[in-house]
Amino acid sequence: MATLGAFSKKHKVTVIGSGNWGSTIAKIVAENTKEHSDLFHEQVQMWVFEEEVTLPESSKHYDPKTGSTAQKLSEIINTYHENVKYLPGIQLPSNLIANPSVEDAVKDSSILVFNLPHQFIKRISEQLQGHTLPYARGISCIKGVHVTSSEISLFSEWIGEGLGIYCGALSGANIANEIAEEKWSETTIAYDPPVVDSRAGTPTGPSPSASQTNLVITPADGGLKDVRSKTSKIKLKAVPAEYPPLDHAIFKTLFHRPYFHVRMVSDVAGVSLGGALKNIVALAAGFVVGRGWGDNAKAAVMRVGLLEMVKFGKEFFGDASRAETFTEESCGVADMITSCSGGRNFRCAKMAVEKNISIDEVEKSELNGQKLQGTSTAKEVNSFLKARGKEADYPLFTAVINILEGRNTVDDIPDLLAREV
Amino acid sequence: MATLGAFSKKHKVTVIGSGNWGSTIAKIVAENTKEHSDLFHEQVQMWVFEEEVTLPESSKHYDPKTGSTAQKLSEIINTYHENVKYLPGIQLPSNLIANPSVEDAVKDSSILVFNLPHQFIKRISEQLQGHTLPYARGISCIKGVHVTSSEISLFSEWIGEGLGIYCGALSGANIANEIAEEKWSETTIAYDPPVVDSRAGTPTGPSPSASQTNLVITPADGGLKDVRSKTSKIKLKAVPAEYPPLDHAIFKTLFHRPYFHVRMVSDVAGVSLGGALKNIVALAAGFVVGRGWGDNAKAAVMRVGLLEMVKFGKEFFGDASRAETFTEESCGVADMITSCSGGRNFRCAKMAVEKNISIDEVEKSELNGQKLQGTSTAKEVNSFLKARGKEADYPLFTAVINILEGRNTVDDIPDLLAREV
Repeated sequence: MATLGAFSKKHKVTVIGSGNWGSTIAKIVAENTKEHSDLFHEQVQMWVFEEEVTLPESSKHYDPKTGSTAQKLSEIINTYHENVKYLPGIQLPSNLIANPSVEDAVKDSSILVFNLPHQFIKRISEQLQGHTLPYARGISCIKGVHVTSSEISLFSEWIGEGLGIYCGALSGANIANEIAEEKWSETTIAYDPPVVDSRAGTPTGPSPSASQTNLVITPADGGLKDVRSKTSKIKLKAVPAEYPPLDHAIFKTLFHRPYFHVRMVSDVAGVSLGGALKNIVALAAGFVVGRGWGDNAKAAVMRVGLLEMVKFGKEFFGDASRAETFTEESCGVADMITSCSGGRNFRCAKMAVEKNISIDEVEKSELNGQKLQGTSTAKEVNSFLKARGKEADYPLFTAVINILEGRNTVDDIPDLLAREV
Repeated sequence: MATLGAFSKKHKVTVIGSGNWGSTIAKIVAENTKEHSDLFHEQVQMWVFEEEVTLPESSKHYDPKTGSTAQKLSEIINTYHENVKYLPGIQLPSNLIANPSVEDAVKDSSILVFNLPHQFIKRISEQLQGHTLPYARGISCIKGVHVTSSEISLFSEWIGEGLGIYCGALSGANIANEIAEEKWSETTIAYDPPVVDSRAGTPTGPSPSASQTNLVITPADGGLKDVRSKTSKIKLKAVPAEYPPLDHAIFKTLFHRPYFHVRMVSDVAGVSLGGALKNIVALAAGFVVGRGWGDNAKAAVMRVGLLEMVKFGKEFFGDASRAETFTEESCGVADMITSCSGGRNFRCAKMAVEKNISIDEVEKSELNGQKLQGTSTAKEVNSFLKARGKEADYPLFTAVINILEGRNTVDDIPDLLAREV
């Protein structure tokens, strides 16, 4: 844990996002700033996308006299210290302040924690232009990566480039409600900023791995043989020496709780990839269990899936992604296990096979037409692999999209995987 | 797959053991000897521990006229091609021959597949003295390892030393009944014999890893710093050049089926350890789920357990055990996943916590007093670690024995694991 040094300034922390997972992370962070007020300002700002909310009768804050009156969500949170809409029943720390203005919420904050749907990153980044500290650092809690046929980009990178700051990533076997109830859990935080010369206020050159944490892979890079990182274009500002240094120790202090164990790593790409690719594996696990093949087959699919995740990281992110991130960390093997246990992708894939209907139909009947994360990721990853002639090297990922699109059936899985080297 | 060369002799295969798992493996092997009769004698002998069996009325072979007449199990198997007692309902290949005489069953066999309770290894080895081919090779399908406070030994090693042959190991996420029903599954076979000079008929020196596959670790070796392998004392005979070579390819041909996928490795110690240590992890998984902590906590326990398995292999078997055996193979991560899903250790541990009773009581009420594999392994591994002052380095393994013996409670687990490096 980080300890107090001779620093004249403390870090102010803002959480951007207040959904189910956002409110849970904000609770954790606010508990820690209070406990470590030598390092952090106690008060944590949480940006709330403002909406009018009527307290449900089941809420302990419900007042029959004013029951039907709609109130602002931010005011409810600041009055009752509960996000009655997205995290009902959980007491939030009183030093967590809901703020409907994102510009105001980030004012003077040197640590920005992003926890909002990835669709909002671009808009919020634009809105924040000129409002964030130039030397702030970010942690993205947004699961997954963005994949198209031409490139893979990380949400932490979108944030970093959007705001001109460095942004790490947090991911793990993290079902938000369990953590909010303080049931024990683990997570992984990847943080590996380039070294910045504090006098010049500009990077003295990225560290070998940091240079690869902001990656865009495009065919324009010269095809597969030449896939490599482009050095980040961001001119990073050094964190002023008045602050405690923003290193692994201080981020562990900010996020680690007795019920939420943090392991720090440097592999931002691996941490982010794990949260995306595991959803493809969860679909495959659902398929074989739905087919009635039992625990052996499910474990086999998970084993092969884990190996394809490792291979994908190595192949497309090179040394920036380590096998151990997938095989040893919460963001890898543990998150995959959780998703294959009872996650939405697993359950819907299982149901589709059991009822002999398409995933589209399950999405319609069970999710009101909302799409599963796994089906879109499977499609995107396949278009990325196909563009590089690499489908055959990822037999499980390829089997999943082929089953989803009717070119294979679940019965083909063993044969398709027998080709695995 | 191995292909026919210019060999004048074929391998004869014997399966020693005919329980649930033994009959399943014998079915697989017999299917493959039939398909690859260029390499193997079609007929596979299976040693049956003879007993008198009365066909149950539910059996399709039940004859009301002779219904109550007890018959010899070996005769039933050879008549109906079904092991009605230990693998009912599964059709066995007709080229699989049950044999109540183990000495006769192994006659002229160059491949011996061991699949019997480990308690019988010693007696059977003694019984087989002088009856096996001196150049035979073995594969042990017996799960786990033998651990005392002073040493860890592998069952494959017991067999090897008992018969003066080299013996590899097979282990994986392998629930026998699912495989017998030809539901898709995977397994791992470790095989890494020393190089033997075929002219001299004696080892020219073990291969670097093979020298460590026959290990006994004792404090007499000089304590922890000096834990190292002792070179096998067996004088191995070379397999005569008339036979197809007994290499990874031929064992894959013998065991791989469309529904039973085999991966060959060289890490006999890792393959064997995985099948033992996973049971400790399964108890821990049962504890946290029984406590109501949910999927995050279960995945966390499994992640930490996998790391302790890797660490244990590295620490006590050195380079003979590879991290990848645990993190990438069916015998490691996949077998652990299966055991933590619905295995007996998991279920009983969960029940003990839910009902707030001891595991002993669960063993009494649910297993007629039979002991769980996990509880004895946890105790043995703990005595081994304790003798070396290494308990603190394995916080999960140590937490499990401390919970079993009442020195800790499940609520202590997060704290105990926070010390994990």
